[in-house]
Amino acid sequence: MSDLKRKILAAVQVDLEAIETALAENLKPHLDLVRDVAGHILFSGGKRLRPLLMVLSARVCDYTGGYDKTFSTALEYLHAATLLHDDLVDGASLRRGKPAAYLKWGNPIAVLTGDFLLARALSVSAATGSVRIVQILAELTEQMSQGEVHQLMRKGDIRLAEDEYLDVIRRKTAVLFEAACRVSAVLAGAPKEKEAALAQFGFNLGMAFQVADDLFDYTLETPQMGKQVGADLREGKLTLPVIHALRQVQAADREWLVSIIRNPQFSAEDFRRVVDLLGSCGAIRYAEQTAEKYIAIAKRELSVFPPSATLETLVDIADYALHRHV
Amino acid sequence: MSDLKRKILAAVQVDLEAIETALAENLKPHLDLVRDVAGHILFSGGKRLRPLLMVLSARVCDYTGGYDKTFSTALEYLHAATLLHDDLVDGASLRRGKPAAYLKWGNPIAVLTGDFLLARALSVSAATGSVRIVQILAELTEQMSQGEVHQLMRKGDIRLAEDEYLDVIRRKTAVLFEAACRVSAVLAGAPKEKEAALAQFGFNLGMAFQVADDLFDYTLETPQMGKQVGADLREGKLTLPVIHALRQVQAADREWLVSIIRNPQFSAEDFRRVVDLLGSCGAIRYAEQTAEKYIAIAKRELSVFPPSATLETLVDIADYALHRHV
Repeated sequence: MSDLKRKILAAVQVDLEAIETALAENLKPHLDLVRDVAGHILFSGGKRLRPLLMVLSARVCDYTGGYDKTFSTALEYLHAATLLHDDLVDGASLRRGKPAAYLKWGNPIAVLTGDFLLARALSVSAATGSVRIVQILAELTEQMSQGEVHQLMRKGDIRLAEDEYLDVIRRKTAVLFEAACRVSAVLAGAPKEKEAALAQFGFNLGMAFQVADDLFDYTLETPQMGKQVGADLREGKLTLPVIHALRQVQAADREWLVSIIRNPQFSAEDFRRVVDLLGSCGAIRYAEQTAEKYIAIAKRELSVFPPSATLETLVDIADYALHRHV
Repeated sequence: MSDLKRKILAAVQVDLEAIETALAENLKPHLDLVRDVAGHILFSGGKRLRPLLMVLSARVCDYTGGYDKTFSTALEYLHAATLLHDDLVDGASLRRGKPAAYLKWGNPIAVLTGDFLLARALSVSAATGSVRIVQILAELTEQMSQGEVHQLMRKGDIRLAEDEYLDVIRRKTAVLFEAACRVSAVLAGAPKEKEAALAQFGFNLGMAFQVADDLFDYTLETPQMGKQVGADLREGKLTLPVIHALRQVQAADREWLVSIIRNPQFSAEDFRRVVDLLGSCGAIRYAEQTAEKYIAIAKRELSVFPPSATLETLVDIADYALHRHV
């Protein structure tokens, strides 16, 4: 474990424990099966990054009400709902090292439990009494489902441009991080300036997070990932390193890379060659720099807040986002 | 067309046209594909019963604001979302005479468009500015998803009792009708007594509606149904006529009926024999009487309202619920 990770965990340990308790207590399903399926995805080693951002965002806005931990379950439930549906959409086999829920319980149960979690997220949010918070989350859900559809429509399309890729990850990931930080500012009754700063912090952190996540598909090994090596490429999901490589490499390498994208049965050796190619043409570095650029913007947005231990933890989390495998 | 249907349609024609316009205008998808898939289910000859109940419920509470038509799209979007997900869950092949969306566009697109519609329903509701309305709809969605899970868990189980069947249809159908009527009373700022009466009207109408819908699987032909003959039985979905028959018929008939339930490949001739058996043992009549009982309760609940043309239409709709195929 890196020093940075150790420092963050020490700072948020009490919060993480409270979040864990809240996640179990607020699930309130009527059926044991729904509890089992929701629990399979909710309690499988997620980092609780979204609820943690919510709790810290509320605190940096001097929130003193007692609803922050309960409220923070909303975006973790929503996140879990999208994971249940997206794994089915992507045909993913592993999630955090465990079989995907749709494979264990079938498509119907995975879909319906996702619906339950989505509704639960909105119930928890409505209990704040703030219609604005509910509006933010409902609009977020519209964006996310469409981001997934968009990604699905462009699967295997080697003409996918960087702009369109960034638009997809904006909808499928960044808007959720943005909403997590924004709704907590709303809950805390923070002034518009602070709300906007936290929203931008969350948005840019989310962009960096997804670019890094997509990069990890090419730089990490299975045990660190909890999912299959080369899963994105095998699904025809083109992400920034491949998009950049396709426009950088020579014709022969490009032709070969396209042939791999079009053949989901590529070998482990093929995949190693892809990784080498992404490294040598600068695509890995390009994706890293893109993520770093977003992190720099995210951190700059926090300058409206006075120094505090909570602010420092938010900055640390931003720095950690790019190196979260260590 | 029956005289009753003609009378209702004449009374609500202007409302139905406004609802149709609102359904198209408020969809607001970002992607054409989402519009196509949502449109496939939304504009396929649905009767608009839920939005109509909302508009009439608001009117009977003397609502004069201008948001009732837009608001009424919420429960139609939510209903369409559940149809998209439920057809996949049930493995249904036809919906309103058209191929189910998941067969035409695949599971992923059907799931994600359902998520979009669900979120859209909550966005439209949040725009009322009433947190209570959002809470009612979020809780409703929790109930409905769990009702579907419950039904799925008990598929093919010949021990399913009438009480448990009624609990399932309560969650999967009646709570939606209840919510449709209740939220409009909330929107109109109606006194508690009227809100409760409308909620109970909607609930009992919903119970009758589902009992009748389940009965139609045994009494109507395909062209009237827009779905396969004997679809429920083929899916192992035990509904009131079969539940009643299983406890009424002699041992030999019961054994034969159980063998049909356990064989989804039963022939058209087998199915005709099932229908004959349900008729001769009184099961068809029992289900009709059950639906009639709920309709009687629903109509009685409306007695708190003074006579009006709108009230008369609500009563007519209740009477029509059991005979909506004519």
